[in-house]
Amino acid sequence: MTAMLARLLLSLFLLLAAFGGVRAQVSDPLPSWNDSASKANIVAFVDKVTRQGSADFVPPSERVAVFDNDGTLWAEQPMYFQAFFIFDRIKALAPKHPEWKTKEPFASVLLGDVKGALKGGEHALIEMVMATHAGMTTAEFEQIVSDWIATARHPKSGRRFTEMVYQPMLEMLAYLRANGFKTFIVSGGGIEFMRPWTERVYGVPPEQVIGSSIKTRFELRDGQPVLMRLPQMDFIDDKAGKPVGINSHIGRRPVAAFGNSDGDMQMLQWTTAGKGARLGVLVHHTDAEREYAYDRNSSIGRLDKALDMAGPQGWTVVDMKNDWKTIYPPPAAR
Amino acid sequence: MTAMLARLLLSLFLLLAAFGGVRAQVSDPLPSWNDSASKANIVAFVDKVTRQGSADFVPPSERVAVFDNDGTLWAEQPMYFQAFFIFDRIKALAPKHPEWKTKEPFASVLLGDVKGALKGGEHALIEMVMATHAGMTTAEFEQIVSDWIATARHPKSGRRFTEMVYQPMLEMLAYLRANGFKTFIVSGGGIEFMRPWTERVYGVPPEQVIGSSIKTRFELRDGQPVLMRLPQMDFIDDKAGKPVGINSHIGRRPVAAFGNSDGDMQMLQWTTAGKGARLGVLVHHTDAEREYAYDRNSSIGRLDKALDMAGPQGWTVVDMKNDWKTIYPPPAAR
Repeated sequence: MTAMLARLLLSLFLLLAAFGGVRAQVSDPLPSWNDSASKANIVAFVDKVTRQGSADFVPPSERVAVFDNDGTLWAEQPMYFQAFFIFDRIKALAPKHPEWKTKEPFASVLLGDVKGALKGGEHALIEMVMATHAGMTTAEFEQIVSDWIATARHPKSGRRFTEMVYQPMLEMLAYLRANGFKTFIVSGGGIEFMRPWTERVYGVPPEQVIGSSIKTRFELRDGQPVLMRLPQMDFIDDKAGKPVGINSHIGRRPVAAFGNSDGDMQMLQWTTAGKGARLGVLVHHTDAEREYAYDRNSSIGRLDKALDMAGPQGWTVVDMKNDWKTIYPPPAAR
Repeated sequence: MTAMLARLLLSLFLLLAAFGGVRAQVSDPLPSWNDSASKANIVAFVDKVTRQGSADFVPPSERVAVFDNDGTLWAEQPMYFQAFFIFDRIKALAPKHPEWKTKEPFASVLLGDVKGALKGGEHALIEMVMATHAGMTTAEFEQIVSDWIATARHPKSGRRFTEMVYQPMLEMLAYLRANGFKTFIVSGGGIEFMRPWTERVYGVPPEQVIGSSIKTRFELRDGQPVLMRLPQMDFIDDKAGKPVGINSHIGRRPVAAFGNSDGDMQMLQWTTAGKGARLGVLVHHTDAEREYAYDRNSSIGRLDKALDMAGPQGWTVVDMKNDWKTIYPPPAAR
């Protein structure tokens, strides 16, 4: 009796929820997006892959959407936010490294000379990454990142970095999840630099974060098992590395991909070359006033080849200036 | 009005569902398990980490359970099932490789001499892996595995390999998921050898499968993006590699780990060293009649050091012969 009654009530509830769902669709799930072509494209895509009976229907288990982070979910100017972390860490660690005062690229960092520090190119960058990201356990590094992200502020806006996420993209993540998508981050940034805060900020749990990594090693330290972070690159999750990282972590091809630079080009190619309806989106930084305007000539987040490819490939290009009502969420919200 | 009514009906439904839940707990979620100490341990653990108000309560997002595959979820005798795949593939590919007739380890395989083929040790094994697992796209390999697993049969039982999964462990996976756990496979076997069938057989989707891997490379082939499988090891997900693979893919420490051999020792150490309630389980192969009996002296699935560690570490040891009512599901079920 109870079971039958429960089933009856459930049926009634689902029926009403379905009507509620129709009503919810009337209210806008993407309120920070202007009624632009890009918004219409995205909404039409989500509708056709989720509507039962649609020729393009995709079962929930296959609804995988991937998002680049830097420049797609949060800002990346005047330099990648992880670079601010690296410089802050070098300053914090300097007392233990007196030799850094006369050793590049560290000497420049300690003098506040970012350009000087970056003069050494990739080699200098990797040296700084290893000096700040390796040599501790994974748990210790997680704590270091958590402490930094809670307090560090962007030099121009004065906001916390997690307050420089894009409100329209937070809505996009939530909108896709509400439509049965599993949302993943696929970033060139460090995987362990993102995981401590992506669940709180984006609603993306650590197991759905893919990024660049250094090697770790299992050890017993004072009898306790730890994972030590080693000063050795493991994987670079950028450009042609992104489809490789996606395959390694997810094991299926996404149906939707969001990026903003040439570093995301192969991820969008890989995603949209799949059978059936696919969505490729490029966020184009066109808003010099509210954010930053840059594309083909930027050293950070260069968007050139991928922009040329957008038309022929049928990718949606989001014009931040005209398509987004707001850029950042209210500061208190994050 | 409709919304209020819906909420009211939902409340009523949840209330009834809760009572139903109490009733469901009276009916056994692990019917293939005898009422043993190991079963009681596991059920007590699940109860205390999922019961609201329990001192050991673990929020759903952190309920991660990891399972070894070979010897834990399916059988692994007289050799790892992936080895049967390798030998079958060598036979299938032989017409394209006339040189194999006189070249070890291939020559032995073609003569049906498994021992001869394995004489060359790790070097010979890797050579056979690369000859059969690399040189095609990820999509092509997925098809090859899918075709093989649908038809190949175990030499002793005559069953399909996916019919040699353990019924009590299928119930364990479902039981943990019903209690809000995310279930992951963490296997020394090939990640792409498992992914084509784990969702159908175990209910574990590809993004929750971790395993050993070879490198892949993004390429355009006839203008189409593909991932080519390269004859180069990427990661060995065994022994001390298991915590590394878990950290890389999941980014948080599991609260429960199930294994059966020394290859799972570090995974259990890593899992059970975490704060709060943790569960470590070893499946001990004690049933020579219904399955196989082996532990300290087996070259496949050796269980020696981990068995010694079980007592001091408080791990639960499952005695297959006495704790399990049945071993395999009815053949038709898979």
